[in-house]
Amino acid sequence: MKTEQPYLLTPGPINTTLSVKQAMLQDWGSWDGDFRAMTARLCQQLVALIDGEDSHVCVPMQGSGTFAVEATLATLVPKDGKLLILMNGAYGQRMGKIMNYLGRDYVALDKGDYEPPRGEEVEAILAADPAITHVALVHCETSSGILNPVEEIAEAVARQGRRLIIDSMSAFGAVAISAKTVQFDALISSANKCFEGVPGFGFSLVRQSALDASKGNAHSLSLDLLDQWQYLAKTGQWRYTPPTHVVAAFLQALKEHAAEGGIVGRHARYQRNQQRLVAGMRRMGFETLLSDVWLSPIIITFFSPGHSNFDFQAFYDRMKARGFIIYPGKLTEADSFRLGCIGQLHDVQIDAVLTAVAAVLDELQIPNGAPIHALNAAATA
Amino acid sequence: MKTEQPYLLTPGPINTTLSVKQAMLQDWGSWDGDFRAMTARLCQQLVALIDGEDSHVCVPMQGSGTFAVEATLATLVPKDGKLLILMNGAYGQRMGKIMNYLGRDYVALDKGDYEPPRGEEVEAILAADPAITHVALVHCETSSGILNPVEEIAEAVARQGRRLIIDSMSAFGAVAISAKTVQFDALISSANKCFEGVPGFGFSLVRQSALDASKGNAHSLSLDLLDQWQYLAKTGQWRYTPPTHVVAAFLQALKEHAAEGGIVGRHARYQRNQQRLVAGMRRMGFETLLSDVWLSPIIITFFSPGHSNFDFQAFYDRMKARGFIIYPGKLTEADSFRLGCIGQLHDVQIDAVLTAVAAVLDELQIPNGAPIHALNAAATA
Ligand SMILES: Cc1ncc(COP(=O)(O)O)c(C=O)c1O
Ligand SMILES: Cc1ncc(COP(=O)(O)O)c(C=O)c1O
Repeated sequence: MKTEQPYLLTPGPINTTLSVKQAMLQDWGSWDGDFRAMTARLCQQLVALIDGEDSHVCVPMQGSGTFAVEATLATLVPKDGKLLILMNGAYGQRMGKIMNYLGRDYVALDKGDYEPPRGEEVEAILAADPAITHVALVHCETSSGILNPVEEIAEAVARQGRRLIIDSMSAFGAVAISAKTVQFDALISSANKCFEGVPGFGFSLVRQSALDASKGNAHSLSLDLLDQWQYLAKTGQWRYTPPTHVVAAFLQALKEHAAEGGIVGRHARYQRNQQRLVAGMRRMGFETLLSDVWLSPIIITFFSPGHSNFDFQAFYDRMKARGFIIYPGKLTEADSFRLGCIGQLHDVQIDAVLTAVAAVLDELQIPNGAPIHALNAAATA
Repeated sequence: MKTEQPYLLTPGPINTTLSVKQAMLQDWGSWDGDFRAMTARLCQQLVALIDGEDSHVCVPMQGSGTFAVEATLATLVPKDGKLLILMNGAYGQRMGKIMNYLGRDYVALDKGDYEPPRGEEVEAILAADPAITHVALVHCETSSGILNPVEEIAEAVARQGRRLIIDSMSAFGAVAISAKTVQFDALISSANKCFEGVPGFGFSLVRQSALDASKGNAHSLSLDLLDQWQYLAKTGQWRYTPPTHVVAAFLQALKEHAAEGGIVGRHARYQRNQQRLVAGMRRMGFETLLSDVWLSPIIITFFSPGHSNFDFQAFYDRMKARGFIIYPGKLTEADSFRLGCIGQLHDVQIDAVLTAVAAVLDELQIPNGAPIHALNAAATA
């Protein structure tokens, strides 16, 4: 099956619907009332998705998701604060890099490539170090695809009276989280992952009281979340030129998200994609990095076949020739690749991916059906 | 004349062609070779437009234009450097704000709302203060619409052996500038002004040797222009998720820019728009803030009629009802409004704007034809 456009089996940008893209076939004046109403609707709908109407506000931020993460850390963690970063992959590590630029104090609980940070160990670290003011967690660590245990970590952080910042870039929109039951000061995400919009901005859903107390923290004019919020609250406008077309696409994407049943409906489809993909790949002998309990419905890491005929670039190119863009792995220890479950992927595309993988294995003369990697799935519950 | 979509008489976002918007009707994997080729083409074409092939590189930056300005100042002006900012409006002032966040030394030559900074005074300041390492200039100061005298300032800066950074956000693409004849270390612009793309990224055309010498300067991971460049040079990819659709639209916009005759052709149309607009408005009695010699082909500031029936919001709403989004003024001393000349505006739209203005004056019972503002145009050569 060669498709007109490639299917993106990646963690974003992902395939969007034609209607989402068609929402960009117009121009808006960013200063005008029509666009201000669009921004207001966007913020209101995102806050509602975390039950945050009484506690949180939405601050959109131009740029990629990383810009929103940096803006949030810089605005919420004071200059004399101290951050505990729960690392188990590239995106936790990136928060460490951001803190290095900021020159603010932090420690990391580094669990390596894919082991989950657990509530008890977080609690022990916090109990032992009262200087820690904030904890940062990656919700779905897209590097391995693990869904980190946000509830037990949030409980530990709350019991110790510290503040939680969640990078939910690749999970929000498909994994439910309520500000009424999970305590967090900020949850960060972006337009082009589970909401199935096009890339161009991120956003932070921030506890209003935490934001109000953040004056003077930010290191950057562009990335000052408080300043962005105050201007938005006063004028209804983004401080600097917003990506108007991307915002319009996002509003259409939110409409389609609601029509699919909101977070619950979106989660159900992605979960189904994941199970169908994992089952099919396992039938061919592929092994997942993670045991089932840690698999997210977002993206799955598979070990590369140990067979000497396997070469990632050849596999990638042959999958692309069949209309599928797959994603390289990010493990430091073992060769791997990733397949995403998000975006406009349904049973028919998942089945077509599996057919394509089988055909490519065949072309590469790699046996299909026997275990094709000797390593065992590694993460344990 | 009520149009389907409003015409944007603003300095960006502006009206783009349908073909530019239609270029967004596809999804791209940002990691994939097809998109990397698009990024390479974009950078190569922008560098060629300043004759910079031997000296400059293009570093795109996610976010609005301000993000690219902040990234450039933070990456090029070292922590122990000192910047002279030539201010005559909001965008020069904004560079001062950025420097305050950076905590780096700067002085301003503040010419107020619209007076142009001149070569001799810049040279005198530089001669008197050898600590100044860099000078920042706004090419077209969009606040008033003045086209600042970049050549004479660049000469003064070069004679004094300092480095020039140009915010050409609203001018580049329609005002010619060559790195072979004007010495500058960086020229900053964005997708959604004279190139007639949609908003979502900016870019900096940076002297390679200046960038190479900038290690350790940046204050922010997201806004580290050197890190962005090094990653791009190594992998062909943007460091973090690029606004793929906005980039695709920009490539189409570049194609249409070339078809119109490049910078020369684009300048000719905008200049014609400006002259037609100014002549028509003057016939109705409006006065421009600036004398002709300082008018840019980008945006024009008109004094608001002194008549007691004039109210900006009423004027705005009635112009909008006729299909035109106009722009508020930014002067501290006098009431004013602005009309942009850029984007998909041609004779027919300019004439329609003039017809609409006449009709609105009529509705508001403001006499048309007599001088309607007493103040004289203020800037002098
Ligand atoms: C968990 C997580 N955090 C942060 C990011 C960074 O987002 P961006 O590439 O938009 O900067 C990603 C991107 O995949 C992500 O998955
Ligand atoms: C001269 C100049 N500099 C900077 C900017 C800021 O650009 P943005 O609104 O995209 O951040 C503008 C926007 O109009 C501008 O005209």
